Amino acid sequence: MNDKKVKVGLMGLGTVGTGVIRLVEGHRDDLTQQTGLQIEIAKVLVQNPGKERSISVQSDLMTTDPYNLLHDPEIDVIVEVMGGIDNTLEYILEALNQGKHVVTANKDLMAIHGSTILKKAAEKNCDVFYEASVAGGIPILRALVEGFSSDRITKMMGIVNGTTNYILTKMSQEGASYEDVLKEAQALGYAEADPTSDVGGLDAARKMSILSTLGFRAGVNLEDVSCKGITGVTSEDIDYGKKLGYVMKLIGIAQQNDELIDVSVEPTLVKQSHPLASVNGVFNEVYVYGEAVGETMFYGPGAGELPTATAVVSDLVTVVKNIKLGVNGRGMVAPYKVKKLKTDEEILGKYFIRLIVDDKSGVLSQVTKTLADHDVSLEQVMQQPYNNGSKAELIMVTHTSSKKSILSILKQLEESDYVNEVKSFYRVEGGE
Amino acid sequence: MNDKKVKVGLMGLGTVGTGVIRLVEGHRDDLTQQTGLQIEIAKVLVQNPGKERSISVQSDLMTTDPYNLLHDPEIDVIVEVMGGIDNTLEYILEALNQGKHVVTANKDLMAIHGSTILKKAAEKNCDVFYEASVAGGIPILRALVEGFSSDRITKMMGIVNGTTNYILTKMSQEGASYEDVLKEAQALGYAEADPTSDVGGLDAARKMSILSTLGFRAGVNLEDVSCKGITGVTSEDIDYGKKLGYVMKLIGIAQQNDELIDVSVEPTLVKQSHPLASVNGVFNEVYVYGEAVGETMFYGPGAGELPTATAVVSDLVTVVKNIKLGVNGRGMVAPYKVKKLKTDEEILGKYFIRLIVDDKSGVLSQVTKTLADHDVSLEQVMQQPYNNGSKAELIMVTHTSSKKSILSILKQLEESDYVNEVKSFYRVEGGE
Ligand SMILES: NC(=O)c1ccc[n+]([C@@H]2O[C@H](COP(=O)([O-])OP(=O)(O)OC[C@H]3O[C@@H](n4cnc5c(N)ncnc54)[C@H](OP(=O)(O)O)[C@@H]3O)[C@@H](O)[C@H]2O)c1
Ligand SMILES: NC(=O)c1ccc[n+]([C@@H]2O[C@H](COP(=O)([O-])OP(=O)(O)OC[C@H]3O[C@@H](n4cnc5c(N)ncnc54)[C@H](OP(=O)(O)O)[C@@H]3O)[C@@H](O)[C@H]2O)c1
Repeated sequence: MNDKKVKVGLMGLGTVGTGVIRLVEGHRDDLTQQTGLQIEIAKVLVQNPGKERSISVQSDLMTTDPYNLLHDPEIDVIVEVMGGIDNTLEYILEALNQGKHVVTANKDLMAIHGSTILKKAAEKNCDVFYEASVAGGIPILRALVEGFSSDRITKMMGIVNGTTNYILTKMSQEGASYEDVLKEAQALGYAEADPTSDVGGLDAARKMSILSTLGFRAGVNLEDVSCKGITGVTSEDIDYGKKLGYVMKLIGIAQQNDELIDVSVEPTLVKQSHPLASVNGVFNEVYVYGEAVGETMFYGPGAGELPTATAVVSDLVTVVKNIKLGVNGRGMVAPYKVKKLKTDEEILGKYFIRLIVDDKSGVLSQVTKTLADHDVSLEQVMQQPYNNGSKAELIMVTHTSSKKSILSILKQLEESDYVNEVKSFYRVEGGE
Repeated sequence: MNDKKVKVGLMGLGTVGTGVIRLVEGHRDDLTQQTGLQIEIAKVLVQNPGKERSISVQSDLMTTDPYNLLHDPEIDVIVEVMGGIDNTLEYILEALNQGKHVVTANKDLMAIHGSTILKKAAEKNCDVFYEASVAGGIPILRALVEGFSSDRITKMMGIVNGTTNYILTKMSQEGASYEDVLKEAQALGYAEADPTSDVGGLDAARKMSILSTLGFRAGVNLEDVSCKGITGVTSEDIDYGKKLGYVMKLIGIAQQNDELIDVSVEPTLVKQSHPLASVNGVFNEVYVYGEAVGETMFYGPGAGELPTATAVVSDLVTVVKNIKLGVNGRGMVAPYKVKKLKTDEEILGKYFIRLIVDDKSGVLSQVTKTLADHDVSLEQVMQQPYNNGSKAELIMVTHTSSKKSILSILKQLEESDYVNEVKSFYRVEGGE
């Protein structure tokens, strides 16, 4: 249909890279119909060219030298699906310097160096798209940037890490311990050998910083995201949550009120009746609230070969359409708002608190007085014997209060003589 | 920031038009930041300029003559939110003839005359966007066209009409009759004085034809959509559905297998555990399945002043960005696939069937033999006394079978001497 070909340099032929080749080859006619141009995978960067792979790629396309792609003047677009941060930043900046457009699935890179990369892209009139970097198969970045361009987003909330969701789902369903489930998840390939960035919440925090930057149109950095992982979550916490009607999930929340922003990732007790509570395994779900649109929600696979490749190749289609129209790098909008973060006093929420106290009269009233002194009242409270009745366990869910009050209440309780131990505390979401 | 203004002619200042003005005025700076151009509502078409309105519009902007907008050379974009089909088609074609871009919320028009309008737009290098026409606040058309451009969509399924969803929700929750709930919905403004196109399924069918055309990239006309409304749904059907674990919903389904398409709208019994079963009131929810991406879902408000205006103004932002780049009318992809519809033999589904039979031995076996003769087997069956025990009521849910088999079974049962009446039959969805 058209003789001009768009040549793609593919960096990485692992899970996602394999999917990219499958889609570009399997949907050749569709892609040409939509873009008016043919897409050709011209070179493929790998680490180990001898590795056995599930698809066959002509061996003369394979290279281990990134500059074979970056300095090939015939290559128009770099699709980066190799992962990593420092080297990868260097390669992507060099690609842009060479006037090549970039599609990437790399949230680690975009969360940390996104603004540098986008600035360089603007300078060079190049496209950079990264839909696959958040919530794999869900076209959520397009929704934020284009679908809600006319609205003001006030809140984004969701499950954006499949590994931790898988682990918490299993812990919840089977009453198993964190360590046991983690081992099982690693054996099944649902968790990496080094799971730190998933279970520590960092992966989700990176995605929340990307979502907030686009949704709030302000540069929200990774350091702006308050982050707590799931390594401290116990099966007791999950059980007590259940008894009070909640499910434990790792939830990312980004809020903006009166131009003040707060972004956080932490294990959260979600009301059982809330749809987020029933998102299981490796699926992702993101709620987006806009001043005008109200409540919307997006659900789909958060990772996987073909779902992630769908996002990557759809971005590639956009780049190729832009090439056809000659408008690359000119449709993107840099964050134009000044970021102002909330203080702990301005961050509001409900909290679950679990204490071990002496089992004697007056303790409950001392605890509730401490809360009342900070203007915090309780929505639910449950007391039960602990350690054969020598102590009592006190589980409370507060009404909405400031994070600052909660933190100073916890400090005061910890230092008091009537509380033996603050076992745990979690944010609570999804009720009203 | 930029002196060039984009002038908009707004046709209609009702629910949606009012929201459009609120957003364009309320978000002026944001819109300018994103597009690099200022947007000005230059003229407003209404029917009755003297009408009291909830926003104030300079009276010299108002006109009752559409050609004051269509023939104003200063106007760049027509935003059509007046509704109607024949006149409106004429106006929109004239707008395009005059080189003006068009944003519309009009599903009635786009479902019937979409291809004519898009052809004219392509001829004139003009944009036509209509995100608001399906599922109000949910950016589903963008998701289909851009987010899943690299994938092959196999199924779209959802609740796309708020009025019928409101009525069925109420009937289900209160055990009330269709007629009573309809009256209440009309009094509350959730149903129109003439509700025919909503309750007859036509409105949903129009939306499904728009979704299928974009999702399958083939011209699916309104006549291709098999359509049944909710006027025949009784509270008994809803109750029996409940007993078997289902909720009654008006569901649109579009499927494509091996390039064969079927699209339908009909009252459907949805498994209680399926998320569609808990979409209440005026919310919409659409599932999209892709070969590569798997299952995804989009949820949000289906209508309303500001949600719908969000979609309209976001489309306007895209038009204005395109004006800035000089690429209007060149990013759109006309349907390029040949549409082939399934026969009833190729349409597969599960069905709920409710019969009145004589209460004597052998009847159940005669009925099941009729099914077996057509290779249809049962997943669930329930028998109970009817009319004080003189008759019996037989409620069945089949396993997956062809629509053709079901229709000929129903015919045979109706003509048989052991069945008194086929009370109702419904499609069943959401189980496995
Ligand atoms: N997997 C998912 O579901 C998913 C979802 C969303 C986003 N992502 C992101 O997508 C990216 C790729 O993920 P993946 O799961 O596909 O990774 P992967 O399976 O580990 O594959 C990485 C690929 O890159 C190559 N590679 C890595 N470092 C290299 C280097 N320094 N030089 C040359 N080649 C190098 C590897 O070569 P060899 O094959 O020779 O070892 C391999 O082909 C990551 O940024 C990830 O965060 C992944
Ligand atoms: N309402 C929703 O939530 C929603 C959601 C999605 C899509 N839509 C679509 O959006 C469109 C508008 O809906 P709406 O609810 O805003 O309608 P509406 O409240 O009835 O408003 C219609 C407006 O158009 C004007 N108008 C109608 N016919 C006209 C004519 N022949 N000449 C001049 N002016 C005329 C009316 O003028 P007066 O004010 O002088 O009477 C009124 O301002 C429809 O196509 C609808 O299907 C609506």
